[in-house]
Amino acid sequence: MPNPTAAMLVIGDEILSGRTRDANMHYLAGELTQVGIDLAEVRVVSDDPEAITNAVKALSEAYDTVFTSGGIGPTHDDITADNVARAFGRPISIRDDARALLEAHYAKSDQTLNDARLRMARIPDGATLIDNPVSTAPGFTIENVHVMAGVPAIFKAMVASVLPTLTGGAPVVSLSERIYRGEGDIAGPLGALAERYAELSIGSYPFQQDGKFGAQIVIRGTDADQVNAAMDELKAEFPA
Amino acid sequence: MPNPTAAMLVIGDEILSGRTRDANMHYLAGELTQVGIDLAEVRVVSDDPEAITNAVKALSEAYDTVFTSGGIGPTHDDITADNVARAFGRPISIRDDARALLEAHYAKSDQTLNDARLRMARIPDGATLIDNPVSTAPGFTIENVHVMAGVPAIFKAMVASVLPTLTGGAPVVSLSERIYRGEGDIAGPLGALAERYAELSIGSYPFQQDGKFGAQIVIRGTDADQVNAAMDELKAEFPA
Repeated sequence: MPNPTAAMLVIGDEILSGRTRDANMHYLAGELTQVGIDLAEVRVVSDDPEAITNAVKALSEAYDTVFTSGGIGPTHDDITADNVARAFGRPISIRDDARALLEAHYAKSDQTLNDARLRMARIPDGATLIDNPVSTAPGFTIENVHVMAGVPAIFKAMVASVLPTLTGGAPVVSLSERIYRGEGDIAGPLGALAERYAELSIGSYPFQQDGKFGAQIVIRGTDADQVNAAMDELKAEFPA
Repeated sequence: MPNPTAAMLVIGDEILSGRTRDANMHYLAGELTQVGIDLAEVRVVSDDPEAITNAVKALSEAYDTVFTSGGIGPTHDDITADNVARAFGRPISIRDDARALLEAHYAKSDQTLNDARLRMARIPDGATLIDNPVSTAPGFTIENVHVMAGVPAIFKAMVASVLPTLTGGAPVVSLSERIYRGEGDIAGPLGALAERYAELSIGSYPFQQDGKFGAQIVIRGTDADQVNAAMDELKAEFPA
């Protein structure tokens, strides 16, 4: 049975303008691989209502699970929650459970729960809250979409909350080997190996460092015996 | 007149598995911003024929210019060129001009131009070659799509070749200011400012470091006078 699939939607002008380098995609990719969920596609869109709703609809229909990052803070450019609600045709308003979390948090702080901060309690009808142990303002899950913060520390904490609720697939076993030959010399035998082991994913990543060059060959699959057998054949073909 | 739009398509299982952290998106975003081209969307897809052709078609239709990165090397998992050709219904084969480049390169090397390396001369009919000063194997431009290597050094060199051929828009002026207040305290006045300056992009990016917290406010636009005026108002609202 193939592994469940996932997509990620990164929302934010700051990524597309080059101001900020996204860190959440790489983190989520690694976490999903460990639990046997295939991250199949990532999209990055700007803080634009149509762009967000269209991407949420497309990815929610195409994949088992969708993760979003960014755009759920208190400022005017934080429009993710409203547009995810719109994508599913759900009403959205300040919800009592989210408001209670924020009230408890700000009661202990020297900041006030003003109208801007109350926007962070806007949650679509029927959504489930995602815990935010870092700064309280929650994310939420609606249908198969998990809406999370863009600040990396909060994103990581929310991923940790959500992952145990998902059904993973067979964990992927991965072996890699550095071969100090030109990638073009490796390509022929490697292509033949990939044909013999059609169920495995075999990738070649050229490198050049310290005056040496070559390619790192990565063999991945859910059947550890197959991965080992393919790696043995590779090493026999290209002895160190 | 609005600035021209661009999209990027990153192709490669290694990004989606978390093995490699993409660097090209952040680089391209910064370069495009400098020449007044709006990077409006990025997609990351796996080494899958349908995923590549569908994304190329969708992005090519939706945006003025598309940049791809990855999948144009000599190994079996390098399938970008063939699937970009397929997206445009163009024949693809080993082309004489690309083969000549590779022949000249390998004649000076101790490597041979074997069948695997010759795959890098597969160029769709009607495409224009993109120079590769790093390792010779060319990228190509077909319709509004620029097909480039994933190795960051080569990607950068190819971007440098392509950018001067594009018509940019008005360069974006950007000013930023760190405000040491909670983002929720800044949000109200900032939202009002964004309404008064509707043509500007005003973003708020919370930070927390060295025991202090606040938000960096970034004001961006093509009209420098407007950007300056909005920043003056912001500073008057939140004196240092």
